[in-house]
Amino acid sequence: MRDILESVADGSLSPTEAEVQLAGYATTDAGRFDAARETRRGLPEAILADGKTPDETATLAVAAVETSGRALVTRASPAHAEAVADALPECDIDRDARAKTVVAYDSPFERPELDASVAIVTGGTSDAEAAGEAAVVLREMGASVERIEDVGVAHLGRVLDHLDTLREADVLVVAAGREGALPTVVAGLVDTPVIGLPVSTGYGHGGDGEAAILGMLQSCTVLSVVNVDAGFIAGSQAGLVARAVSDARNSE
Amino acid sequence: MRDILESVADGSLSPTEAEVQLAGYATTDAGRFDAARETRRGLPEAILADGKTPDETATLAVAAVETSGRALVTRASPAHAEAVADALPECDIDRDARAKTVVAYDSPFERPELDASVAIVTGGTSDAEAAGEAAVVLREMGASVERIEDVGVAHLGRVLDHLDTLREADVLVVAAGREGALPTVVAGLVDTPVIGLPVSTGYGHGGDGEAAILGMLQSCTVLSVVNVDAGFIAGSQAGLVARAVSDARNSE
Amino acid sequence: MRDILESVADGSLSPTEAEVQLAGYATTDAGRFDAARETRRGLPEAILADGKTPDETATLAVAAVETSGRALVTRASPAHAEAVADALPECDIDRDARAKTVVAYDSPFERPELDASVAIVTGGTSDAEAAGEAAVVLREMGASVERIEDVGVAHLGRVLDHLDTLREADVLVVAAGREGALPTVVAGLVDTPVIGLPVSTGYGHGGDGEAAILGMLQSCTVLSVVNVDAGFIAGSQAGLVARAVSDARNSE
Amino acid sequence: MRDILESVADGSLSPTEAEVQLAGYATTDAGRFDAARETRRGLPEAILADGKTPDETATLAVAAVETSGRALVTRASPAHAEAVADALPECDIDRDARAKTVVAYDSPFERPELDASVAIVTGGTSDAEAAGEAAVVLREMGASVERIEDVGVAHLGRVLDHLDTLREADVLVVAAGREGALPTVVAGLVDTPVIGLPVSTGYGHGGDGEAAILGMLQSCTVLSVVNVDAGFIAGSQAGLVARAVSDARNSE
Amino acid sequence: MRDILESVADGSLSPTEAEVQLAGYATTDAGRFDAARETRRGLPEAILADGKTPDETATLAVAAVETSGRALVTRASPAHAEAVADALPECDIDRDARAKTVVAYDSPFERPELDASVAIVTGGTSDAEAAGEAAVVLREMGASVERIEDVGVAHLGRVLDHLDTLREADVLVVAAGREGALPTVVAGLVDTPVIGLPVSTGYGHGGDGEAAILGMLQSCTVLSVVNVDAGFIAGSQAGLVARAVSDARNSE
Amino acid sequence: MRDILESVADGSLSPTEAEVQLAGYATTDAGRFDAARETRRGLPEAILADGKTPDETATLAVAAVETSGRALVTRASPAHAEAVADALPECDIDRDARAKTVVAYDSPFERPELDASVAIVTGGTSDAEAAGEAAVVLREMGASVERIEDVGVAHLGRVLDHLDTLREADVLVVAAGREGALPTVVAGLVDTPVIGLPVSTGYGHGGDGEAAILGMLQSCTVLSVVNVDAGFIAGSQAGLVARAVSDARNSE
Amino acid sequence: MRDILESVADGSLSPTEAEVQLAGYATTDAGRFDAARETRRGLPEAILADGKTPDETATLAVAAVETSGRALVTRASPAHAEAVADALPECDIDRDARAKTVVAYDSPFERPELDASVAIVTGGTSDAEAAGEAAVVLREMGASVERIEDVGVAHLGRVLDHLDTLREADVLVVAAGREGALPTVVAGLVDTPVIGLPVSTGYGHGGDGEAAILGMLQSCTVLSVVNVDAGFIAGSQAGLVARAVSDARNSE
Amino acid sequence: MRDILESVADGSLSPTEAEVQLAGYATTDAGRFDAARETRRGLPEAILADGKTPDETATLAVAAVETSGRALVTRASPAHAEAVADALPECDIDRDARAKTVVAYDSPFERPELDASVAIVTGGTSDAEAAGEAAVVLREMGASVERIEDVGVAHLGRVLDHLDTLREADVLVVAAGREGALPTVVAGLVDTPVIGLPVSTGYGHGGDGEAAILGMLQSCTVLSVVNVDAGFIAGSQAGLVARAVSDARNSE
Repeated sequence: MRDILESVADGSLSPTEAEVQLAGYATTDAGRFDAARETRRGLPEAILADGKTPDETATLAVAAVETSGRALVTRASPAHAEAVADALPECDIDRDARAKTVVAYDSPFERPELDASVAIVTGGTSDAEAAGEAAVVLREMGASVERIEDVGVAHLGRVLDHLDTLREADVLVVAAGREGALPTVVAGLVDTPVIGLPVSTGYGHGGDGEAAILGMLQSCTVLSVVNVDAGFIAGSQAGLVARAVSDARNSE
Repeated sequence: MRDILESVADGSLSPTEAEVQLAGYATTDAGRFDAARETRRGLPEAILADGKTPDETATLAVAAVETSGRALVTRASPAHAEAVADALPECDIDRDARAKTVVAYDSPFERPELDASVAIVTGGTSDAEAAGEAAVVLREMGASVERIEDVGVAHLGRVLDHLDTLREADVLVVAAGREGALPTVVAGLVDTPVIGLPVSTGYGHGGDGEAAILGMLQSCTVLSVVNVDAGFIAGSQAGLVARAVSDARNSE
Repeated sequence: MRDILESVADGSLSPTEAEVQLAGYATTDAGRFDAARETRRGLPEAILADGKTPDETATLAVAAVETSGRALVTRASPAHAEAVADALPECDIDRDARAKTVVAYDSPFERPELDASVAIVTGGTSDAEAAGEAAVVLREMGASVERIEDVGVAHLGRVLDHLDTLREADVLVVAAGREGALPTVVAGLVDTPVIGLPVSTGYGHGGDGEAAILGMLQSCTVLSVVNVDAGFIAGSQAGLVARAVSDARNSE
Repeated sequence: MRDILESVADGSLSPTEAEVQLAGYATTDAGRFDAARETRRGLPEAILADGKTPDETATLAVAAVETSGRALVTRASPAHAEAVADALPECDIDRDARAKTVVAYDSPFERPELDASVAIVTGGTSDAEAAGEAAVVLREMGASVERIEDVGVAHLGRVLDHLDTLREADVLVVAAGREGALPTVVAGLVDTPVIGLPVSTGYGHGGDGEAAILGMLQSCTVLSVVNVDAGFIAGSQAGLVARAVSDARNSE
Repeated sequence: MRDILESVADGSLSPTEAEVQLAGYATTDAGRFDAARETRRGLPEAILADGKTPDETATLAVAAVETSGRALVTRASPAHAEAVADALPECDIDRDARAKTVVAYDSPFERPELDASVAIVTGGTSDAEAAGEAAVVLREMGASVERIEDVGVAHLGRVLDHLDTLREADVLVVAAGREGALPTVVAGLVDTPVIGLPVSTGYGHGGDGEAAILGMLQSCTVLSVVNVDAGFIAGSQAGLVARAVSDARNSE
Repeated sequence: MRDILESVADGSLSPTEAEVQLAGYATTDAGRFDAARETRRGLPEAILADGKTPDETATLAVAAVETSGRALVTRASPAHAEAVADALPECDIDRDARAKTVVAYDSPFERPELDASVAIVTGGTSDAEAAGEAAVVLREMGASVERIEDVGVAHLGRVLDHLDTLREADVLVVAAGREGALPTVVAGLVDTPVIGLPVSTGYGHGGDGEAAILGMLQSCTVLSVVNVDAGFIAGSQAGLVARAVSDARNSE
Repeated sequence: MRDILESVADGSLSPTEAEVQLAGYATTDAGRFDAARETRRGLPEAILADGKTPDETATLAVAAVETSGRALVTRASPAHAEAVADALPECDIDRDARAKTVVAYDSPFERPELDASVAIVTGGTSDAEAAGEAAVVLREMGASVERIEDVGVAHLGRVLDHLDTLREADVLVVAAGREGALPTVVAGLVDTPVIGLPVSTGYGHGGDGEAAILGMLQSCTVLSVVNVDAGFIAGSQAGLVARAVSDARNSE
Repeated sequence: MRDILESVADGSLSPTEAEVQLAGYATTDAGRFDAARETRRGLPEAILADGKTPDETATLAVAAVETSGRALVTRASPAHAEAVADALPECDIDRDARAKTVVAYDSPFERPELDASVAIVTGGTSDAEAAGEAAVVLREMGASVERIEDVGVAHLGRVLDHLDTLREADVLVVAAGREGALPTVVAGLVDTPVIGLPVSTGYGHGGDGEAAILGMLQSCTVLSVVNVDAGFIAGSQAGLVARAVSDARNSE
């Protein structure tokens, strides 16, 4: 600890980095950035822009880049995205407007690389945001990601067209709104773990993803499930499986 | 009306039949049997045994046979079935233990015959009771009934095996519990009306048919739905469609 | 398939039409338009404007017209309607502001014509949007549509005034909000299939259509039901019945 | 108070009656009987047998007879009814097995008599218990009670047959299960207050009276409502209205 | 009927008034105004402004004045109120901004006068809108209205201060949000009918009036209840009781 | 630790007591008894009999007595109570049949004694079980307990009769079912902490304690709340407050 | 009372203060300010700005300062805060923008001082508003407040870092959103009362604080709970406990 | 196929096995046994005894042994277990009374063996049944299973005692009832996938596992979840992950 403090004193370590090394997080005006989680679970710590001002979001993103070399912002409006870009002019910025994510990289940043693949399957265009959030976190964790889009249970043929891709993945994230039956149909076709990601489409009775999540929990095949629209969680859980597989592949 | 009363007076008409002709229903100790509904919608009036004693059920069944030549008892325990059989020794009795229905016929009874067919599709053995209730009311309405059993959304192949039968029916009743996705899958394969029949299987969150009915209401294809376990309603509605088709076939 | 590709090569077939013939759908910037559904179930594929930008809606409408000769847009705001009209200057446009629908026709477009009629019954002016959606899809499927408006269960006389019209229809869609009892009352008066369409009126406990849909599911007569405000589904299901009747009338 | 205590001392007043005069209730081993409510609101205090043992019920009934000359027991099983009769051998016992009520009268007991009438309307036999509970409390309050049974919204004719009776009542209790639409239909036909009494019939989604109570709360006409199966409350509220009318009739 | 038509022909009767006399309602561009309800139940027909444009509201108000001499508009924003006043320049306008009601009277208009009084009790200022709606309809029905405000169950003394006023009323409307206990407390103090009016205050779990309505339905004393914020219904039901009492007082 | 093991070796410490000293709990065939909680929070560790067999309950009670000198069994049927008494023949047994609790004491057992008092208030006899559970745990924690029974919000006088007792307590537990308003009324009368204990009485809509807990959470005065029927938790929380007050009184 | 009126007459007492002394509250154009509650429970009476206009809020704040020397405004937007400051130019203003509270003090104002401490623990930055509301009311009641922030159940180490502070407090308020497990974890570490404060974070199924409040009600340790986001209630209840402890410390 | 039929003809293949090879399932009087699922996903097909008679269960178990060499029966009462043992006298029977499972093996049966480990963590004894179901399916899939029992979030020390075991597992199943916080706490300590298994303990508001499942879905760390009490699903999903890891370890 003395070393760290001396590095701060001689300027070779910023106070933020020192705080991270000592306490596991960085304190900012906009709250705390949890750098330790990267270390603990190997998951990129996401900054949820929704409910924060653009300024708060940017402040946390700066702290994230400073401490972990990368900032992953989810549910970002264009204003959030702009604020992050403005605050980090020297960073590479990867923005996925459909998934509402922004990733800023200190340069040079080395993403981990996993020897495992994940398929992300969606039933319709309204699943794009949640599925995209999953895809971004998986990319950041280093997994190979394969997207299969617009296959719905009312159109069996489309699902069957992708059978090979589905079966080649080490783990699958299957997003679906409305009645949420797609993960069940897909899980019946593969022998790998499937994570159901319910999406808040639908209307009237059982809308806002309620029918979808209940349907996945009641699935007559083997699935595990995350909360409605929880693309970041679904992607991270798939990433943890992928990393376990990758580590196993490269062990001995 | 005078004629009716004179027929009662000279014994050629029972008081029960006279009441039916005048008021549309027969009054018994166990309540009222609604004979008029047969006339009004052409639907056999069912006697729901569940919640009635065997004696009450039998009393209503006797009134039904006397006024309409037929008694259709649903959700009948063995004790209910026995009481009905005992009370109607001269009747032909058709009992379906799995669907928990009993039908007693005055002899000779002429069932209507429709020139239309209905397919009843189920996802698993636990759907048998509700689907069976639908099958019985359809048989009594005179429709040709085709049963397709044990095809589930986690086993696409099984559904596809029955494609021809599914497409030959004039109207379909598709029963499913758990996540309730089978009607959606089937409706995507045919160009005829599909009626979803949710079944109260499932457990935990969304159990007792809740996930199933919500899933069918949220279906991304065209369906109409009845309440959980409402096999009699699903069968009757399919029968009304079948009769409309049959009448149209035979009009000119 | 070679033929299709050669037609594309020589310009006699647009890439969009070719994609539809090969894959069953057309891919656009705004997502996928499912042209195959027209073929599969004979249902016009609706473009749900709600949740899409005017531009996305218009892009999909162009794809729809190009592939099926017709675009049916539901839940369209004035801005959506305008965008569609602007994008398809050569089309006939049929706009129903109350039902919030827009239909654009390639000219000349031949709607199918069914030899069957559907009555659409509403309890009040707040049911107009859902009922209108049903009416538009039925018109596009070719059914004769009879509207009966503003008949409520608290005013029995009004319902009885329309008894003849109700009984002449081959199938009925009955829309109701608040307590949702109108379909039950109507179904007690006819011998044809009735489809209940709950509407999201009402307030406080059981509001937003919840009391209406539960009441229809609990109906003491024979009904099938669609989700709250699902006018398109109710109309389509009635249309499938009407087409079955029409086909039967014109068979031999 | 001294007078009361002296009457106890010389035996002209039982301790129970003295307690009632001083405290407004009688304490028994089975809990407290609230005699004061009779005085306060003019409502007979009911002893709810459900959840009590036959012995506890009988003990409270004895206290009720001793202090108010009458015991009104609701939701009584045959065992409860027998225990009450055994404990009060000198009383007149009025037992309504269908409504599951028992009333025991000290003799001679003078019921109040109101110059007002209440109609109790039911949709089916399963409403009999709740409606019967209402009828008993109204009889005990002294109102004239008219029963109209088995009129359902799917059979408009039956309702209209009773129009005169409905319109002659000063206030109405309308019981209905399933979709609960009968109070709305009835209220549309009369110009007097209607109290809706939802009944716990129905099954599946919205069963156990949920659809019925929500439907009555959403009624598009003027109604007030009590809880599911709350026959005692509905009857008492109607009795309070009847008494107000009766008092007004006899004032001058 | 011929007479009516001839009166129209010679101009002594407007088409609107003729339609009302023949059909019981007036048809306008903004929908139908139900004039017959005034006659049927003696209740002023309210025009619910919420969900209608100011123009539609004004159109219906004009029809109401033309057919019944009075227009009662509820849940009116300032814009609605202004539109009504503009459309009816010759009318007396009574506007209660807190209750969000507007009443326009043809002149001279004779309100009925009832020989009965209603107390309206509220627990807090947030109950003012719902209670005010009840007060306006009661005034229009001709009842004497007494307001008791800001008495809450956490301050028993305040309730007890008004004991005499509470006991003098023929019927009471008691409005309460949050836990909704006030009607129970008040009903324990009077021997007249109490109508509970739950109000959509409260937050978090059980907010929006849910705890209030459930509490009133579970009340351990005798109450009947209307839906959350249904001031118009509560007032009308109290008015029906008041009229019954008034008629009884003035009969013989 | 060596000392402990040696004590076991020489027989001066039982293996159970040794396990408790080392691990904080005792392992039995029926599961684990958490002796450490006594030490940690000073709360007697309750054995919930409901859901366990009489044998399992008795086994855990033996372990409890052996390790903490006392066993507190809640929700005990007569069979549970008997099994506990049989297994601990040398213990003093305190059984409260109404609260369904059994406490067995090693002799001699010294209960703690607190210099603080708790009032437990109930609205009716159906609150007795939950309130009794609270009373027992408070007695075992050493608080003085004052019971105030059968005071309901529909009878304000009864509450006011007990004002002095209510105000003398250091902390109050107020139990109520149905609409759950009693804690609010009581809290309006005292300046000490009130803990609301909702009870699962009530029926129909909002029954099983739902209206009660929601009403307490929405209370317009200051309260904290425990779950429905959680008498043990309410009593323990009141006991923690009482102990804090007692400790403060005796500190200096 | 005569004295009070004479003081008003000679100007030594304002009418507002006189009303408070006589009636316990002050009437303003914006409603009633309940000054008596200060006296009754020793709790500062909060003015909930949410749902009031800035003007109404300021009017009530002026009345509060005039009658109790202090105004505590909760859930205040910047506009509310400004209006209060403008209306009370001579007051000291304490504004906590994060907790959305404003307190205005007449000068000189003497806050009470309690000899007891409260710890307020939060799981994340989104708990800041609710926890801040609790902190402000505790400060106004005179308790010492210790804040422990950003300790979450997914990071056990952080909780354990604060063990000494947690154990030194006399009572704790623990705020948590999402799964709401923090109060359980904290209560397992201390022997003093813990009040759970659920916060309306979270999304999808169980969001808006529902999972948090249910989790706290189901806690496997001893807790009492307030409604979602009810920081004022949680703080006040903790303040009542702190005052009881403080009084006990300083008694003899 | 001819080969199969010839083998049946010459008796070298039973008809049941032939049906399995041709259709993927075996038809019995008690329904269909889905042998193909073993092949398809490598999951043992479980026979859910709950809801089946002992005879039906035994019949399906015989079919299972005949077709896959093994029968796995879940939620078996003692009567179910006995019937299975009686029907398969030649089999090895493994019965876990606590988890209510029975496994019968044809002899000799070779279970697969995976080079991967799963930890199953429970919060209390009431989680034993669900966790045991998971353990049995994992054992049958061939994973190494480590059980960690009775660690609860109110006792952090116990969780930390098992840190090494938790971190050594390749994947974890964490079962918890009540507030369901244990999976969150555990997931914060490991870098491998955690599957939350909510258990239907708890009572009152949020009981029956509702609080537990909502809490897991709202977890502030990364988890996926199965339905309440779905031990078989949780175990199978963990087994699919374990097999993926095992396969990766042994690939090269």
